[in-house]
Amino acid sequence: MNKIYVVGIGPGAYEKMTIEADRALQSSDMIIGYTVYVDLVKEHYPTKIFLTTPMKKEVDRCMMAFEEAKKGHVVSMICSGDTGVYGMAGLMYEIGEKYPDVELKIIPGVTAALAGAAVLGAPLIHDFCLISLSDLLTPKEKIKSRLLHASEADFVICLYNPSSKKRSGYLRWACDLMMEYKSEDTVCGIVKNIGREKESVLLLSLSQLKNTDVDMFTTVFIGNSQTKQVDGHMVTPRGYKGV
Amino acid sequence: MNKIYVVGIGPGAYEKMTIEADRALQSSDMIIGYTVYVDLVKEHYPTKIFLTTPMKKEVDRCMMAFEEAKKGHVVSMICSGDTGVYGMAGLMYEIGEKYPDVELKIIPGVTAALAGAAVLGAPLIHDFCLISLSDLLTPKEKIKSRLLHASEADFVICLYNPSSKKRSGYLRWACDLMMEYKSEDTVCGIVKNIGREKESVLLLSLSQLKNTDVDMFTTVFIGNSQTKQVDGHMVTPRGYKGV
Repeated sequence: MNKIYVVGIGPGAYEKMTIEADRALQSSDMIIGYTVYVDLVKEHYPTKIFLTTPMKKEVDRCMMAFEEAKKGHVVSMICSGDTGVYGMAGLMYEIGEKYPDVELKIIPGVTAALAGAAVLGAPLIHDFCLISLSDLLTPKEKIKSRLLHASEADFVICLYNPSSKKRSGYLRWACDLMMEYKSEDTVCGIVKNIGREKESVLLLSLSQLKNTDVDMFTTVFIGNSQTKQVDGHMVTPRGYKGV
Repeated sequence: MNKIYVVGIGPGAYEKMTIEADRALQSSDMIIGYTVYVDLVKEHYPTKIFLTTPMKKEVDRCMMAFEEAKKGHVVSMICSGDTGVYGMAGLMYEIGEKYPDVELKIIPGVTAALAGAAVLGAPLIHDFCLISLSDLLTPKEKIKSRLLHASEADFVICLYNPSSKKRSGYLRWACDLMMEYKSEDTVCGIVKNIGREKESVLLLSLSQLKNTDVDMFTTVFIGNSQTKQVDGHMVTPRGYKGV
């Protein structure tokens, strides 16, 4: 049976990939992905054929992978982070219904929330949510509801896609919503270019975060009521009863 | 400066570790962890010294790591999954305040939510929460509030620690709470022994999940209102507007 590996390559640096992901790419004839991600891995797999499609051409990219697999090529479809977190794994299954002879093997990776957390310290030690601020495919009302409920229930929150050219005020909007339940002094952190060149990190309060500009390569962390700064790191305790 | 690597080894299988985690363990003199995790990696690092402490002795384990690092040994403290998700990274920073001469380097890994999702299909493609049902360190009221809010806001939910000998009815209790907002037909999945021997997977409805016994080696996934079964896999679409 023809096979496609759907591979999360982690945040970018080669060594943050899993051994399994590396082996899948090594054993593939072709590696398909969004141009930016292909550029991140290309140098490590010099003998492979690379195919790319631009952003927002995800459906084309998936069909390209299935068509190449049908021809008998071993194909890897790559995503940054984890292919199962805001990634291509879901779309691959949906499009794969038309290609019953092609089997998918999903290879998980370190998503930005985990990689960014490791740079900040330990913000995600307790219950947390991931919320994307992109309203490209999700109604803004739904995003609002999730921000409010997650804040009221005192989750640590990690925001993906906090900003883009078209959505420059969204982080400010999200902070205002979260401050309906979270203190303005809540410990927050932002990490830019995780695991890549020019990685940078900043700890700040929720009220400061509200007035901070971030770009689309930034991941944002908002603590729970127990999150604190420990020696310049963002740390959420394991629980509330002891320790 | 003395250094401790705090390493997430992923769900268990060697190849699900990151290249960076493998390199950290290779470069360490000593590897410290809970007995079960040490047994998972031991065969791959035959020249290392392994130190273990039993479950619930986390503080002792952390102090052991700092004491060995102070003596000049390069130490890796290992956790299954990601050390920053219900793991030891936070406690290491807290205890590390007493050891200003020891530097921590957190190495993220593939947590059970990501590894389990890859086995089930693509359940975590959209906004999701991780909630632990363990009330060892968290008041049960807080867990209840998080289950209710996460369900009302239509998050995909991934449950850690869904059961133990002392908490045998907790999954049933959690399902009842989630069904206050989620349909009893919500697509759910459970994965047992992720990435280890005897890995098993089951798709079922939320009402079936309520009547299912799980053990502490199981991770539980509850879909959002859009999650569906695609060819035997649990798949959450990327959004609601298109595709």
